[in-house]
Amino acid sequence: MQDIIRLQQHFAEQLAKEDFSGNPKELYEPIEYILSLGGKRMRPALCLLGAHVVGDYQKAINAALAVEVFHNFSLIHDDIMDEAPLRRGKATVHHKWNTNIAILSGDAMLVKAYEYLSKTEPLGPILKEFNKMALEVCEGQQMDMNFEDRNDVSIDEYLKMIEYKTAVLVGAALKIGALTAGADETEAQKLYDFGRNLGIAFQLKDDWLDVFGDTELVGKQAGGDIIANKKTYLTLKAIELADANLLDELDTLYGNPEISAAEKVKEVSRIYIQTGADKKTLEATEVYYAKALESLQSSNLSSEHKSLLQAFAKNLMDREF
Amino acid sequence: MQDIIRLQQHFAEQLAKEDFSGNPKELYEPIEYILSLGGKRMRPALCLLGAHVVGDYQKAINAALAVEVFHNFSLIHDDIMDEAPLRRGKATVHHKWNTNIAILSGDAMLVKAYEYLSKTEPLGPILKEFNKMALEVCEGQQMDMNFEDRNDVSIDEYLKMIEYKTAVLVGAALKIGALTAGADETEAQKLYDFGRNLGIAFQLKDDWLDVFGDTELVGKQAGGDIIANKKTYLTLKAIELADANLLDELDTLYGNPEISAAEKVKEVSRIYIQTGADKKTLEATEVYYAKALESLQSSNLSSEHKSLLQAFAKNLMDREF
Repeated sequence: MQDIIRLQQHFAEQLAKEDFSGNPKELYEPIEYILSLGGKRMRPALCLLGAHVVGDYQKAINAALAVEVFHNFSLIHDDIMDEAPLRRGKATVHHKWNTNIAILSGDAMLVKAYEYLSKTEPLGPILKEFNKMALEVCEGQQMDMNFEDRNDVSIDEYLKMIEYKTAVLVGAALKIGALTAGADETEAQKLYDFGRNLGIAFQLKDDWLDVFGDTELVGKQAGGDIIANKKTYLTLKAIELADANLLDELDTLYGNPEISAAEKVKEVSRIYIQTGADKKTLEATEVYYAKALESLQSSNLSSEHKSLLQAFAKNLMDREF
Repeated sequence: MQDIIRLQQHFAEQLAKEDFSGNPKELYEPIEYILSLGGKRMRPALCLLGAHVVGDYQKAINAALAVEVFHNFSLIHDDIMDEAPLRRGKATVHHKWNTNIAILSGDAMLVKAYEYLSKTEPLGPILKEFNKMALEVCEGQQMDMNFEDRNDVSIDEYLKMIEYKTAVLVGAALKIGALTAGADETEAQKLYDFGRNLGIAFQLKDDWLDVFGDTELVGKQAGGDIIANKKTYLTLKAIELADANLLDELDTLYGNPEISAAEKVKEVSRIYIQTGADKKTLEATEVYYAKALESLQSSNLSSEHKSLLQAFAKNLMDREF
């Protein structure tokens, strides 16, 4: 894991050197702000890693910056849509400033991402890959919004949504990194598939951890998704597996505005366990994790580099928070 | 002007052939909708014209599509920020659907613009030019929003705002078109300067027409900017030129919530005339128009092509509505 930590640190140092200031300050201060909130910088680190396993990670710096700036653009706009007051424990941009500033500084960040991209090579293939990913991220966010108003979301639709909203950026980060270092399309696509499947597994694990993770380690209230009535893999699987009685119970729990948050989380979690939805979610996680490793194995990377990516994946999947 | 009308028609036909449909439909229908509202397609026509005067306008089709899609992205987001209910006489996207859909379909359009750009050549220089313009358009919109809350906007600041918000896209459309047809940087930059100055002149004329244009031809209420308390060149110039009495009168007119819209327009227009702000605005229009023609003359274009662009500019400036 040393290599990965080194790449994360290298990226953090590069990001700190970048100047995001500008005029009017109302446009640029939110950009500096959201980028200063930290986070694990997993996506840009994966971009550098994609280049590292193919050749020289230094070639992927601008691509990694594009990936991180794009990710933070999507956070600013998603937070408006989700009416989220907090991001990483701090005020979201639209709360700290206002919605108009959040829309516009988000737009400027999306353009900034393309500024970094314009400094990468090979430009054509990278731009094409990035555009495809960016449009899918928009589609995933729209699907997520649509699901709020629907009661007939299928598990396949949910998987498509998390693939687009979360996983394609993980895949694209790796692939674009690999392209900067000279990978051919076939090899780069294997890294994409590795990242995409890992991203889906990551999100499914996240759904599970939200309910069954160690609350203290997660650092947030257990069952936040249950309280917010979010449709996750757990919910959809529980609905699929529940008998008539448990379905009634679920309906009552989600339809009761009087119930306390703690009680709701306790009772819904019990139904997840009774239906076996908890185990099925972890099984699905394993399926996508295995698919990720399969893509990796089919690549022509050295066994040393395969091990490195495998270690990264294992680290991501083994987390208990 | 036949050439220009032909290029506008050619663009309209190309745009009609493009498929903007997709899933989820909530993301793509607003894109189809805003692009179907029409408009003069002046910017993409200028992009084709920029290529035509240098070489083959066919090479600029994807660039022209990028320009038009970008322009409409900015309209969707601007309309949210301005809380505008109508655009070209039809419901704005955030009114017809909702704000979240307007934010996200706008984002998708910005990505779509880059999809078209990715099909242009020479890609590197075009992308760089487009990014610079796109960021300036964001800066211009932020300046415009900031001006609403300020009472000390200078004329220089106002000119910078309209340059960024409106004129740089006119310049970039021409320049990018020229680049696709093989123009060198120096020649393309002269077309940019022609377009940028023409764009400023166009906006100043627009400010003047809003108050003094033929209401029936303009097709909207005269003095809309006065009613909306917008700071335009006319207002700022009137403030600069007014004596103490007229300044007091202006203050009273803008500060009186009881006054009827018609009365306010009538009285403020009178002050524009008394101070000479109306004439000064037309003079400023002429200054930028002259600068535009100067840039054009300094280029190496054939006299036939110079005449063509000059005719376009004259047509734009001579309009009475």
